[in-house]
Amino acid sequence: MTTRPKAVVLLSGGLDSATVLAAAQSEGYDVHALSFRYGQRHLTELRMAARLVARHDVANHKIIDIDLRQFGGSALTSDLPVPQDRPINEMSSGIPITYVPARNTIFLSFALAHAEVLSAFDIFIGVNAVDYSGYPDCRPEFIATFEALANLATKAGVEKTGRFRIHTPLISLTKADIIRKGLALGVDYSLTSTCYAPDSETGVSCGQCDACQLRLRGFADVGQADPIAYRKA
Amino acid sequence: MTTRPKAVVLLSGGLDSATVLAAAQSEGYDVHALSFRYGQRHLTELRMAARLVARHDVANHKIIDIDLRQFGGSALTSDLPVPQDRPINEMSSGIPITYVPARNTIFLSFALAHAEVLSAFDIFIGVNAVDYSGYPDCRPEFIATFEALANLATKAGVEKTGRFRIHTPLISLTKADIIRKGLALGVDYSLTSTCYAPDSETGVSCGQCDACQLRLRGFADVGQADPIAYRKA
Repeated sequence: MTTRPKAVVLLSGGLDSATVLAAAQSEGYDVHALSFRYGQRHLTELRMAARLVARHDVANHKIIDIDLRQFGGSALTSDLPVPQDRPINEMSSGIPITYVPARNTIFLSFALAHAEVLSAFDIFIGVNAVDYSGYPDCRPEFIATFEALANLATKAGVEKTGRFRIHTPLISLTKADIIRKGLALGVDYSLTSTCYAPDSETGVSCGQCDACQLRLRGFADVGQADPIAYRKA
Repeated sequence: MTTRPKAVVLLSGGLDSATVLAAAQSEGYDVHALSFRYGQRHLTELRMAARLVARHDVANHKIIDIDLRQFGGSALTSDLPVPQDRPINEMSSGIPITYVPARNTIFLSFALAHAEVLSAFDIFIGVNAVDYSGYPDCRPEFIATFEALANLATKAGVEKTGRFRIHTPLISLTKADIIRKGLALGVDYSLTSTCYAPDSETGVSCGQCDACQLRLRGFADVGQADPIAYRKA
């Protein structure tokens, strides 16, 4: 029997959420990982999530099916093209086509349901407001408001048996800082996938989408080689 | 081509959401109805939702599959028994076992995603804080906080192309007031199901759960016969 407090960790299988998983464990939490099959065009990330869970000896990992393709509106859940070779300094001007409407709101809502049933009050999410590619639901004010909502929405919040906290250990870090933090925590970044448009058969990353470019620049800033392969880097 | 503003209406197929659907139409909205197959033990409500959509000539009705049974924790999504014959004056003391963790947060998150893709800014939900059986996610402060979240979470909210509003036309009405309002709007309550534990084959309502009792008292207060059948009433 563990006596560690439980935490729900949103785990996409990307670089950021792998780092968050390690951070939550290093803070002493018993991690319950939560991933989503949400209609994303590629499932490479979910394969990585499963490998991360095995490596980090996580007790519980749930994968929830939610079909966001029924709504559409994003390059990640439809046939809209993913931008390639966009200059990094243009990424934070405007919200890109890879934005998935209300995705983090939906993911956090499921994490809240899971946490409430587990009697957990701590939810970890790897949002980042520095290299954040302009997503509205990665901003600190969004997270703070979701935390307030969590404490109003739930039986546990109303009965004051605990106070929900949304942990965002990466929110103010650059990509290089995130990688440094993860390496210090022993994260094996070969078990992560960040690409918005990986090869559908091999899962190899493109090296040209916004996410690949930010990741590659992060490793370059740290002075380390990225351990994953790229079609073009 | 309609020029009416679009609204997303959360439609369970119960008495309350049927009334909300009619209210949204009477306010001039082009209704996009949204229902969930969330692992509830009975699907009678969804059959009613489909009949309501047909009767009210709603352009679009989506049914989203989300399996909240993976989390459990509620009599509505597991084998826990639904309370029967509880005195009505005891219903608002404490949060009942029929509470589904974070359900309205999840439902509103999907409604927000749907609205954002439709370029709709109006979301209707039939929550009620009078005869509300003690659910935390039916309170005005929960709704106000979700509305704030919606305007932070989304591209549309950030770019100020519009302001999301969560409409709760029933929130301060008694069950009798809701029924009066619905009857005035032409709602056919024979096309609704409210019961937490209807007969699994016939869909007939039990007449003894909290929801049936509140509904029956509402019709009695209005001085009308409830048009649906009950096993025991």
